[in-house]
Amino acid sequence: MRILTVSTVEEIRPGHVDGRTVIVIDVLRASSTIVTALDSGFEFVIPVGTATEAFALHSLNTVIAGERHCQKIDGFDYNNSPTELRKKDHKGKHLILTTTNGTKAVEKAAKADRLLIGCFLNASACINAAMVHNRDITICCAGTRNEFALEDGLAAGMMVHSAKKQASYIETCDFSDALEACFLQLAQRLPKLLFTTTTGKRLVQNQYTDDIQYCGQTDVLKIVPIVKGNRILSLSDT
Amino acid sequence: MRILTVSTVEEIRPGHVDGRTVIVIDVLRASSTIVTALDSGFEFVIPVGTATEAFALHSLNTVIAGERHCQKIDGFDYNNSPTELRKKDHKGKHLILTTTNGTKAVEKAAKADRLLIGCFLNASACINAAMVHNRDITICCAGTRNEFALEDGLAAGMMVHSAKKQASYIETCDFSDALEACFLQLAQRLPKLLFTTTTGKRLVQNQYTDDIQYCGQTDVLKIVPIVKGNRILSLSDT
Repeated sequence: MRILTVSTVEEIRPGHVDGRTVIVIDVLRASSTIVTALDSGFEFVIPVGTATEAFALHSLNTVIAGERHCQKIDGFDYNNSPTELRKKDHKGKHLILTTTNGTKAVEKAAKADRLLIGCFLNASACINAAMVHNRDITICCAGTRNEFALEDGLAAGMMVHSAKKQASYIETCDFSDALEACFLQLAQRLPKLLFTTTTGKRLVQNQYTDDIQYCGQTDVLKIVPIVKGNRILSLSDT
Repeated sequence: MRILTVSTVEEIRPGHVDGRTVIVIDVLRASSTIVTALDSGFEFVIPVGTATEAFALHSLNTVIAGERHCQKIDGFDYNNSPTELRKKDHKGKHLILTTTNGTKAVEKAAKADRLLIGCFLNASACINAAMVHNRDITICCAGTRNEFALEDGLAAGMMVHSAKKQASYIETCDFSDALEACFLQLAQRLPKLLFTTTTGKRLVQNQYTDDIQYCGQTDVLKIVPIVKGNRILSLSDT
């Protein structure tokens, strides 16, 4: 089994995804929001690219969440904020989430054998689910504004390390090895370290420190979101 | 002063280089060969893209070096091998070197304020020369076959770490920080670690282990190559 890691959604090429298990990591905050939403009772999440699409899908049974420049969009129920979402039980509801990286990743990974969503919160559950499936794995760090994001790389490194510990037959690319070493060097500084990354600093400026602290917790949830058509649901429900 | 690091030559965009000091790192083996060539008496190095161009520039005063799939090209004097080159004093000679990444980087960084060549051998000398110049710095890991190469990332991480130790006013991108952490985690395993990277394994298969061992030595040379027109010469000669 091979693990390849790519540094941004923009870098995904067909050869990286076709027939493979793909894990998309967007720690701050889309992946963490999706994992948390499914843990908070939402039946599924629908990722959309724009606020207009989100409003078009709005109904009594839906909740809309998303952000522009870290701020909640006018008329939305929530920001793209896992700590806001988890304050309430949303049993049976559907979450419409605007996420640029999420929708791009879903489009680009359309030919993946399966597409999972990962972050620190569910890192071990996510890589374990991928390994059980026994296909080559591509870990895609979502990145921010087309650039590598350290928090995504650290979560990828954590998954690579977990995979190598479990199986001696794992082959990894140079970038996977670099991120594993990076994670091992910095793991002790989580979650505080996330306040200092490019996206972390932006969230601090906008008073979303609770989200950073929350998203930097490792292995606190077992939910593994999987993309099916235009929906994201819990792997255990499929 | 800001330090940005990019993971392959292909990723370089005009905004990454215009008006900045750019350092290109291709540890195995082009950068190490260039640094070693200038230390072995060559007056300058001319990087070319093809064997045909190299033969066209051949004269009594030139030496031609380069490789295809790790092997010396027919009719060339040397492989792209620093340990072969340094066996002899080449005082006053000119080296014609075929290097795909090298020529691409020179083209892409044409608008850089200055373009330096770095590797483990001259890592501290190279980053110090860049910092003295007091412009924003872009470290470009050359990569191999359009993919990130761990040895280039480690040398970049070493330079980032050296820069941060010297100056508190350095701002770094997330990728620079990741590579610094990766270097700090793995530095103790140099040079042996280089035998296990993608390019390192390829060189082992072709019996170039002496080159790997040599290229994994840190700070053994003071030469800082700089690109001037179509030539690469020692910064101290300019």
